[in-house]
Amino acid sequence: MISVDEARARILADLRPTPAEIVALAEAWNRVTAAPVIARLTQPPADVSAMDGYALRAADGTLHASLTVIGAAPAGHPFDGSVGAGQTVRLYTGSIVPAGADAVLLQEDATRDGDIVRVNDAVKLGRHIRRAGQDFSRGDTVVPAGRRITARDVGLAAAANHPWLSVHRRPRIAILATGDEIAMPGEPIPPGGIVSSNSHALAALVCASGGLPTVLPIAADTREAVAAVADAVAGADMLVTTGGASVGDHDLVIEGLQSRGMVVDFWQIAMRPGKPLLFGRLAPQDGGVPVIGMPGNPVSAMVCAIVFLLPALSRLCGLPAAPPPTTTALLSKPLGGNDHRADHLRATVATDAAGRLLVTPFPVQDSAMLRRLALADALILRPPHAPALPKGAEVPVIRLDSLGL
Amino acid sequence: MISVDEARARILADLRPTPAEIVALAEAWNRVTAAPVIARLTQPPADVSAMDGYALRAADGTLHASLTVIGAAPAGHPFDGSVGAGQTVRLYTGSIVPAGADAVLLQEDATRDGDIVRVNDAVKLGRHIRRAGQDFSRGDTVVPAGRRITARDVGLAAAANHPWLSVHRRPRIAILATGDEIAMPGEPIPPGGIVSSNSHALAALVCASGGLPTVLPIAADTREAVAAVADAVAGADMLVTTGGASVGDHDLVIEGLQSRGMVVDFWQIAMRPGKPLLFGRLAPQDGGVPVIGMPGNPVSAMVCAIVFLLPALSRLCGLPAAPPPTTTALLSKPLGGNDHRADHLRATVATDAAGRLLVTPFPVQDSAMLRRLALADALILRPPHAPALPKGAEVPVIRLDSLGL
Repeated sequence: MISVDEARARILADLRPTPAEIVALAEAWNRVTAAPVIARLTQPPADVSAMDGYALRAADGTLHASLTVIGAAPAGHPFDGSVGAGQTVRLYTGSIVPAGADAVLLQEDATRDGDIVRVNDAVKLGRHIRRAGQDFSRGDTVVPAGRRITARDVGLAAAANHPWLSVHRRPRIAILATGDEIAMPGEPIPPGGIVSSNSHALAALVCASGGLPTVLPIAADTREAVAAVADAVAGADMLVTTGGASVGDHDLVIEGLQSRGMVVDFWQIAMRPGKPLLFGRLAPQDGGVPVIGMPGNPVSAMVCAIVFLLPALSRLCGLPAAPPPTTTALLSKPLGGNDHRADHLRATVATDAAGRLLVTPFPVQDSAMLRRLALADALILRPPHAPALPKGAEVPVIRLDSLGL
Repeated sequence: MISVDEARARILADLRPTPAEIVALAEAWNRVTAAPVIARLTQPPADVSAMDGYALRAADGTLHASLTVIGAAPAGHPFDGSVGAGQTVRLYTGSIVPAGADAVLLQEDATRDGDIVRVNDAVKLGRHIRRAGQDFSRGDTVVPAGRRITARDVGLAAAANHPWLSVHRRPRIAILATGDEIAMPGEPIPPGGIVSSNSHALAALVCASGGLPTVLPIAADTREAVAAVADAVAGADMLVTTGGASVGDHDLVIEGLQSRGMVVDFWQIAMRPGKPLLFGRLAPQDGGVPVIGMPGNPVSAMVCAIVFLLPALSRLCGLPAAPPPTTTALLSKPLGGNDHRADHLRATVATDAAGRLLVTPFPVQDSAMLRRLALADALILRPPHAPALPKGAEVPVIRLDSLGL
């Protein structure tokens, strides 16, 4: 058995980001940049007014001075003359400050009467003027490569004049559920059978991570049925299987794919829930597609997906190799010591009066209880041999609610 | 001027969730349930084995006892006989426990030789058996109404045998940027003009919240151009505008839409950045579509979108009316007192050695700096007249990074 950290490191070391594609800016949200976004213009493009008011020479803006309005410069309609001594031009927020002017008299500090403006508060040189390039200059990197594009990044890329962005192609993830006992929802259920839930939950997790899931037909519990799947995954960036790993005396997924030349890396991990986990690569003639094989138990499959598949998807999407994001929470009750297997306790999260995160593990951690898993807000991470902890101790948690998982 | 809380409460009180539609389970992730998901079957459907092993009568499972194997029950192939005295049936995880058996001998506690199994560790009545309905029973609510569907919920709904789910229709949000000075990215820029960024950032925010954005063509700075937009928003659940509100002497968005019969609720809010914010409803003949009018300044627009539009979108999606989610963070440096306007300080977030969130406001909070906004991880919420705070004080923050904003 190997540790969770080693298993994840080996998976991540083996994966490469998908190649780049060009998408319209309107489709770029939540994608990962494959190239830095470089500003194609300077923002603001020239010195502009930060307020509504009047452009003038600072030397003219003394208290009680009077100035002659010689024009106006609404946004998008710059004044193309020059402001001379004793003159002023009406400005609005964002208007370009006309030539000759070096100060702005605020609207609320001015009294206007026809073409005459009176100064009610002395102006200061350069005040209320945003300098050209204050936000960014042509050639600046405004969004780095390898970043998941936020709504703000979309706005920034637009302002930097990019109608298209180069992003990593969405990873195509083939998902295979195996088992004679499972049926698709709404279809006839075999005797003693259950409805398949893993492939649907995993497909949703792939969507949540920015990938494109392909749910393959359920494979029967024979080596031949599993081996045939290798023909169905050409062009996929990864194959994820559930079930079959450690079914009684045989492991049909491993045996089936090995019969096609899959190379197996590992498949026993010191963790709970979980333990059997396959990582391998299909044969070169089958595209060398990486394979992650999950347990068939739905809770184990989901926890393994969060611990291993989520970081793998992030890596394929073009993000840096890293474990799933954790935060710190305070235990609302004491926790016993842990054995040699890394544990992932399903827990609820609440906020105390001071706004701190409190985490409460479910009293029963049965890995067959999907309903309880769905009610969990977080997984408490318990390393191998972690000591018992008192109420109030800090523990690392993976938030499930905010990740859409 | 009214407060942020009052403005948001008035918006939320006026909005209703979109009606329900049916979507395939495979499309249901991140949608909001419009009806509870009720289990259509019981899980597990019968008593099943929690482990690989042998089914037997507990009374027979004494240390060193020998039993005769009379069959096997792989998953999906239940054994249809009955286990008598001295008999046993091979089981796997998830196999239905055959009639007559009331205990499971673990595989690792058994020695098998042909059809004979020797007991190496005495069994306990009922041990390693998962009872029928332990996860859920037919008729149980497994996912409540009004919940954003997680990947785990998708798995649970599948297990409960639902190929379709009833969810709230995605809210259709029409987005209008106004201004003679703005151009779409990659298109010719007028003299003194800039590239439109607000509508793209807002469209991404709508996507991030589960809505469907429609970006309307940019409206020129005339009342007629704005009024004509009322014809373009039939069937929308909301119209969001940017710019035009408080442009110099006139507010063209308000004047334009009022000329079509829009009823205005409010448009001055004690907040920074922000302040001018329109909330209203188009005339009944224009569908009575609700209107939120944002400032034209990109930073102000985005902050107003987070503070007002995000909760409005959640409400339209079918979630409970609530402010944006906040967490508590510790100030990494002292903060001055606040004036009468609620402030939203752009800040970076880091984690200290103990895993606590530290928040650092940018030294300059200029509302024209879109690039700095894009670099922020959080907004620090400063209520009106909030006192100065020392380093280490707890402040509420809205996390932008985890929301995809």
